Amino acid sequence: MSDQLKKGLEGVLVAESSLSYIDGDAGKLVYRGYDIEDLARNASFEEVLYLLWNGELPTEEQLAEFSDGLSEEQAIDQSVIDTLAALAEADERPMAALRTGVSMLSATEPEPDADPEDLDAARRKGRRIVAKIPTILGAYDRLRRGEEPLDPDPSLSYAGNFLYMLTGEQPTDVAEETFDMALTLHADHGLNASTFTAMVIGSTYADVYSSLTGGVGALSGPLHGGANQDVIETLLELDESGQDPLEWVKEQTEQGRRIPGWGHRVYNVKDPRARILQAKLEDLSEESGETKWLDYTSAIETYLTEEKNLPEKGIAPNVDYYSGAVYYQLGIPIDMYTPIFAMARCGGWLAHVLEYQEDNRLIRPRGRYVGAEDRTVTPIDER
Amino acid sequence: MSDQLKKGLEGVLVAESSLSYIDGDAGKLVYRGYDIEDLARNASFEEVLYLLWNGELPTEEQLAEFSDGLSEEQAIDQSVIDTLAALAEADERPMAALRTGVSMLSATEPEPDADPEDLDAARRKGRRIVAKIPTILGAYDRLRRGEEPLDPDPSLSYAGNFLYMLTGEQPTDVAEETFDMALTLHADHGLNASTFTAMVIGSTYADVYSSLTGGVGALSGPLHGGANQDVIETLLELDESGQDPLEWVKEQTEQGRRIPGWGHRVYNVKDPRARILQAKLEDLSEESGETKWLDYTSAIETYLTEEKNLPEKGIAPNVDYYSGAVYYQLGIPIDMYTPIFAMARCGGWLAHVLEYQEDNRLIRPRGRYVGAEDRTVTPIDER
Repeated sequence: MSDQLKKGLEGVLVAESSLSYIDGDAGKLVYRGYDIEDLARNASFEEVLYLLWNGELPTEEQLAEFSDGLSEEQAIDQSVIDTLAALAEADERPMAALRTGVSMLSATEPEPDADPEDLDAARRKGRRIVAKIPTILGAYDRLRRGEEPLDPDPSLSYAGNFLYMLTGEQPTDVAEETFDMALTLHADHGLNASTFTAMVIGSTYADVYSSLTGGVGALSGPLHGGANQDVIETLLELDESGQDPLEWVKEQTEQGRRIPGWGHRVYNVKDPRARILQAKLEDLSEESGETKWLDYTSAIETYLTEEKNLPEKGIAPNVDYYSGAVYYQLGIPIDMYTPIFAMARCGGWLAHVLEYQEDNRLIRPRGRYVGAEDRTVTPIDER
Repeated sequence: MSDQLKKGLEGVLVAESSLSYIDGDAGKLVYRGYDIEDLARNASFEEVLYLLWNGELPTEEQLAEFSDGLSEEQAIDQSVIDTLAALAEADERPMAALRTGVSMLSATEPEPDADPEDLDAARRKGRRIVAKIPTILGAYDRLRRGEEPLDPDPSLSYAGNFLYMLTGEQPTDVAEETFDMALTLHADHGLNASTFTAMVIGSTYADVYSSLTGGVGALSGPLHGGANQDVIETLLELDESGQDPLEWVKEQTEQGRRIPGWGHRVYNVKDPRARILQAKLEDLSEESGETKWLDYTSAIETYLTEEKNLPEKGIAPNVDYYSGAVYYQLGIPIDMYTPIFAMARCGGWLAHVLEYQEDNRLIRPRGRYVGAEDRTVTPIDER
C-alpha cells in the first residue's frame, strides 16, 4: 500500500485493455489497433460495435447476422413509452429520461436469470440495450413535442434509423454517413469517468443494465459529456450578435471569456475526432449550402490558433468543438447532443465491462480517514 | 505515474474522508469518530443521517427540523407509482425496480436547475431521495402482491414508517428499534464499490440522482450487496431439512460447502455490525418466542468457530450473517433485503459524494493498452 493520495486516480493503472489507445501528444485514437480515422471512414458503426465487443471486424455474413440482431431488438415495451410520456410531461431533461429509460429496460429482459458471470449472456443483454437507445431517445423527443413516437425502421442503418425516428424523415446519404461517423468517433475513449463507472458497477457482477444506467448518469455530468452543447450555444450567440466572427471572438476573449470545445485532459494537440468531424461539417455545409457554422468554427479556430497560440500551450479543439455544429446541421435538438454521446459510448461501456469481467476483481479503493476520533454519543437532550 | 497495475484498486488511496473508519483487525467501525455500536444504541437513524451529512449530531431542535423535512418529502408522484406498477406487472427484481424508481424521481425535483456545484442544493436533493426510498420500496412490494400502496405516516420514524408501509401494521417497539439499528449499521462503510460508484459519477458533477441511481446499481451485484439474502436461504434450507443444526452444518461443510455470511474483504475478525445484530436477534427471538433462527445461527457459528477454526484464519461472521435472520423475523420479504441495504447506504453515498465534491477532481484512471497495433481496415468484401 502506498500512502500517496491519488485524487482523481490520474495516472493510476486500473486495468489492462485491448479496446482503445490514446496518444495525447500525437493526437491519435485507436480502437483495437485500428486508427479512428480509418474506422470512421471505412467501417460502419455496426462494424465498430462488433469490433469492440468481439475483437475483430465482422465478415459480411457476421455483420448481416449482427445487424439483423440489432434491428430485431429495437422495439421498446409500451410501459417504457408510458414512462417516457410521463417524464416528457414533467419536462425531464433528456439525459435523465434516458437514464430512467435504460434502467427500465431490464424489466423486459428475456434472460433475467442468466448467470451474472456468463459473459455471452451479458453481451446479448448489452446489445439489446444498445439496440433500444435510439428508440428511447426518438420516442422521448417526439413525446415532448406532443407527437407520437415512430416505430423503428429495420431496413435502415443504426445511424439512419435514429435520424429517421427523431425527425420523421429519411436522412440524406451525407447526413447518415456523417452521423454514423460521429457515433464511431464517440464509441470508446479509454477509461473515462462514465466507462470507469460502468466498470466499477460491473465489477460487482451487477447486470449490464446497472452498468449502462450508471454510465448514462456519469456522462450527464458537466465535467464529462454534459458540456457538449456549450459550443453550439456559443456559436448561436455569435450568430445572433450579427458581428464578424473574427471580431466577435477577439472581443469575447479579450473580456476573458473561455471558448468551449478547446482543451482536453488527455490531448495536448488537436483531437483526432475533431479533425474528422471538421471534414464532415464541410461536406454538410456543401450539401445544404448553409456555410455559416463552418465559417464561425473556422474563424474562431484561426483566431485562437494564430493570435492566441493556444495549441502551442496544449489547448486545441476537442471533439465537442465540431460535433455541436455537425449535429445542428443535422437538425438534432441541442439538448439531445449528450444523449447521442451516450448512445455511441454505450458500445464502449459494454466492451470495457465485458473485458474487465473476463478477469474480474471487485473495485474497492481506500480512503484515508482524517476525521474526528474517539467521540461518544451525548444524549440528545444534553447536546 | 506508476506502471504497476492496481487491479481492483486495492490499497489505492483515492480520497481523504471524515466519514467512516474501519479497523479490520480490531473489528471496529466508526462514523465521524463515533463507534458504530454507540451510534446504533444511542442515536436514531435520522440522527445518523444528519451526522453523516452535516458532520455533527443534531440538537433536539435541529433533529426536529430535519425529521420534519424528511417526512414532508416522503410522498412519491403518481407517475412513479404507475411505473412501479408496470415493473411489478413485469415481475422486475426489486433492486432493478428501485434503480428505476430512484432515477425517475429527478423528474419531480423542485430544484432541477440548481448549480451542479451548489452542495447545499445537492444535499437537499439527496435528502428528498432518501425520504422517498421507503415509499418506493413499500409501494413496489405491495403492488406486486396486488395491494394498493400505503401513504407514508409522517408521525412515524424513518424505520417505523418503512415497516408500516411494507406490512400495513404498526411495528412493535423492538421491531422498530431493531430495524432502526440495522439501518444505522448499513449507512456507511468506507469506499466500498457502490459508494465509490456514486463518487465517480459525482466527480463529473452529475446530479445526485445519477450518483444514487448508480449506487443502487452497484449494490445489486452479487459480489456486493446482492448476496445478503444467501444466509437466510441457507437457514431456510437447514430448517426444511429437519436436521439438528450442528449435524447439518457438519455434513454440509464436509461436502465442501461454503456457508454464506462468513468472511469480508476488510474484516479479519467478527464484523462489529454482526455482533450488534446478533444481540437484536436475541431480543426479537425473546419477544416473539420464535428462537429457531437464533438457534441455527448460533449453532453454525459455534461449529465454524470451534471445529473449523475459521476465525483463526481471518474468516468470521460478517454483517450479512445476522441481518438475514433479523429481517426474516421482522417479516420482510427475502428479496427486499438488498433494497433495504440500499435504503440505508444511500445516506453514505450522499455523504461521500458531497465530501468529495467539496474538493472535486474528475475521477479518471488509466488503462494499459495491451491490444493489437497498426491494423488497417480491410474492405468488408475482402474479409
